Amino acid sequence: MNINGNFRNIKDNYLFADVAKKTAEFAAKNPKADIIKLGIGDVTRPLAPCVVNAMKKACDEMADVKTFKGYGSYDGYGFLRQAIADYYKGRADISADEIFVSDGAKSDIADILDIFSEKNTVVIPDPVYPVYLDTNVMDGREIKYVECNASNDYLPLPDISVKADIIYICSPNNPTGAVYTKDALAKWVKYANENDAIILFDAAYEAFITDKNLPRSIYEIDGAKTCAIEIDSFSKMAGFTGVRCGWTVIPKALTRGGSKLYDMWFRRQSTKFNGVSYIVQCGAAAVFTKDGMKQIKETIDYYHGNAKIITESLDGLGIKYEGGINSPYIWLDCPNGMTSWGFFDYLLANANVVGTPGSGFGKAGEGKFRLTAFGERDRVIEAVERIKRLKF
Amino acid sequence: MNINGNFRNIKDNYLFADVAKKTAEFAAKNPKADIIKLGIGDVTRPLAPCVVNAMKKACDEMADVKTFKGYGSYDGYGFLRQAIADYYKGRADISADEIFVSDGAKSDIADILDIFSEKNTVVIPDPVYPVYLDTNVMDGREIKYVECNASNDYLPLPDISVKADIIYICSPNNPTGAVYTKDALAKWVKYANENDAIILFDAAYEAFITDKNLPRSIYEIDGAKTCAIEIDSFSKMAGFTGVRCGWTVIPKALTRGGSKLYDMWFRRQSTKFNGVSYIVQCGAAAVFTKDGMKQIKETIDYYHGNAKIITESLDGLGIKYEGGINSPYIWLDCPNGMTSWGFFDYLLANANVVGTPGSGFGKAGEGKFRLTAFGERDRVIEAVERIKRLKF
Repeated sequence: MNINGNFRNIKDNYLFADVAKKTAEFAAKNPKADIIKLGIGDVTRPLAPCVVNAMKKACDEMADVKTFKGYGSYDGYGFLRQAIADYYKGRADISADEIFVSDGAKSDIADILDIFSEKNTVVIPDPVYPVYLDTNVMDGREIKYVECNASNDYLPLPDISVKADIIYICSPNNPTGAVYTKDALAKWVKYANENDAIILFDAAYEAFITDKNLPRSIYEIDGAKTCAIEIDSFSKMAGFTGVRCGWTVIPKALTRGGSKLYDMWFRRQSTKFNGVSYIVQCGAAAVFTKDGMKQIKETIDYYHGNAKIITESLDGLGIKYEGGINSPYIWLDCPNGMTSWGFFDYLLANANVVGTPGSGFGKAGEGKFRLTAFGERDRVIEAVERIKRLKF
Repeated sequence: MNINGNFRNIKDNYLFADVAKKTAEFAAKNPKADIIKLGIGDVTRPLAPCVVNAMKKACDEMADVKTFKGYGSYDGYGFLRQAIADYYKGRADISADEIFVSDGAKSDIADILDIFSEKNTVVIPDPVYPVYLDTNVMDGREIKYVECNASNDYLPLPDISVKADIIYICSPNNPTGAVYTKDALAKWVKYANENDAIILFDAAYEAFITDKNLPRSIYEIDGAKTCAIEIDSFSKMAGFTGVRCGWTVIPKALTRGGSKLYDMWFRRQSTKFNGVSYIVQCGAAAVFTKDGMKQIKETIDYYHGNAKIITESLDGLGIKYEGGINSPYIWLDCPNGMTSWGFFDYLLANANVVGTPGSGFGKAGEGKFRLTAFGERDRVIEAVERIKRLKF
C-alpha cells in the first residue's frame, strides 16, 4: 500500500483552519473577549427572501410523490443552467450546455485538475487563494509563481520566458482585491492561446465589480473560449457559503490534446459526482429572477458600505491598502513593519479583531493582511473604532 | 499542455448515462409508450415528513441574520456527526470525530483515492458499481478483478495469491444484491491487515438488511478499524438521491505509510471541499430522530414489498436471480440466453420496462440483468404483469 506521498509536501494545515484554531485558542483563554471576525471570507447577511421561498417550495415538492425529485442531471438542472447562461447575456455568449452546476467553486477549482496530467507546469500568483497551490502540490505538478506587488498594481502580466500549461487568474483577486482590466486579461488570453495553455479563471467575486469598464467574465475577452475555463459561485454573490452552489463554464470550442475538455469534465463529473441538491438548485435559480437580482444587490451594496468604512479608517491611519472598491477584500500593509502573523496576534490580543495573515497566501504576502467587508455593519464599525484606538 | 491520458482508457459513457440515452431515444420514437423505469437505482418515494420539516426550518434560519449559517465545518456539523455515531451504537464503536459528512457516497468513493498513490494494485469485484473501476482507470492504477458468480454465491473471498493494496467491497452488493456474512467479511479483514491493504467498504444499502445476523457495517468485524474505510449514504436509506448527503468513517487507528488516513482525508476535504449544505445536514440529522427512523422504515418496507412482487413473479417464470431480500436489487439471469443489452432492448421494446444490463457492471455480468425495487407500487405491479405476458 502506497499513500499519496505528495501530501507530505503540503503544509500541515489549511490556512483558514489555522486561523480558526488560533482564534478558538484565544477565545478559550479569554472567555470575556468580544471577538469580531473579519478573517475568513464568510458572509454574514441572511439569504435573499426569494431564495428562501424557492428552497422551501422545493422542500414541499420533495414531500409529495407527484413532485419528488431523485437523481438530477450530473451537470445540473436545465432551468438553472439556462438562468446562468442568461446571466452572461450582454457580456459574453455562453450557452446552457457549456455550464456545469456544482456544490461550490472550491470543489470545481480543485477537481478540474483531474482532467489534466501531472506533467504540466502551473503558474500561480503569489499571494493567492491557498487552494490553487495545495491542490497542485497534492498532484505533484511543477509550480511557478508570479509575484503580485505594488510595483505591478497586484496584477502581473504574462512572462513570455516562462512556459506555463495551467494558469490561475482570480479577478477580483483573493486576497488582494485587485481587478484586471480587459486589456490586461487580453494579454493572458493571447499568451494562453499561443502557448497551448489553459487559464483557470476564478470569478467568485465578480458580483462585487461596480466599475462597468472592468470585465466580470473572462469570456468578455476575444479568444477566451479557446483557452479558458471559468468558475463562479453563489457564495459571495448571494450568501451561499453555507448553502453550497457554484458553476463552471467549459466552452465547447475548448480542446487540448485532441480532446474536448467539456467532454472530459462531463465524464469526470458523471463518474465522481452526483449533482447538487435539487433544493439548493431551486434557491440558486431564484437568485437570477428580477426580485432575486434586486435583493442580492442590496446585500452586496451593504458589504460595499462596510468596505468603505474600513478603507476610510485605513486612510485616516495612513495605512496603505489595495482593493475594497470592486471587491469585498482589503489588502493592507501591516503597520510598523510587523509580520503578517505578528499583526494577526497583535490585532487579536489588542482589538479582539480577527483578520487573515497575508503570508498565509504566499511568500509575497508577508507583511500584508487581509480584511473582509462581509461583517455586520455594527460589528465592522466597532472593529474599526477599536483599530483606530490602537497605537502603531 | 498535457491532458490526463488515462481518460482515453475509460469507456466513452457512464453506464447509467447510456441507459438514459437509449431510453430517451426509444421514448422519442414511441411517444405513446408508457415506460416504467426499474433501471437506475433511483428512489421514488417522497422524503420523510420530519426530514422535510427540518429542512424548511433550516431555510427559515438562513433567512434570519441571528440564525444564518455561513461556512460549516469541512467534516460536517457536530450535531449530524454525533447522530451518525449514535446510529452505529450497539453494532460498532465509532466516534463522531471519525466521521466526515459529504454530498453523497459516490463523491467519497471516488475522491478517497486522492490520498492513495497511483502505484497500488486495486481489487474490484466483477460485476460492480462502475464508479470503482472508472475512477481507478482515470488515475491509472493496476486493476485485478475477482469474479462474483453463482458458484461463489456472488460473494468472493480473498485469493491469498493476489497482492492487493485497495479492495472494494459493496455489501449488500450493487448490482447483485448479495450480502456478506460476518465470517466471510472477517476473512477479508484478516487478509487486509496481513497484507497492508485497505478495504473501501461501500455500505450504501445497509438499511435494507433485515436479517439481524448479517453485518450492516464492516466495523462489526474485529480488526476492521486498522484496515477499513466505510462509506454510507442517505440516498437509499432515506430517499436522498436528489438531496445529496452521505458520510465516510475513517477510524483514528487507521494508518498506512506512517500517516493517519483520517488526517490525510481531513486535509483533502478541507482543501478540495467546503462542506455540505446546512439545510441538507439538518434534514439528514432528522433521519436519526425517533420519528425519522420510523418514517424511513415505512419506506424501506414499501421497497421490500416491491422486491417481493418482482421476485415472486420471477419464481413463477422460472427465472433464476440473486438478491431482493436484504437488498433493493434483483440480479437475474436473462431468459433464453439473451445478452444483457439484448434483454434490455427486448424488455424496453416489448414491455416498455427499463432495467440495467448486467454487462454494464463488468464482463462477469454478461447475460445478467438488474432490476430495482425502488419504483412506485402500482408501476412495479404493472411492470411485472407486462413481463409475465412476454413469451420467452
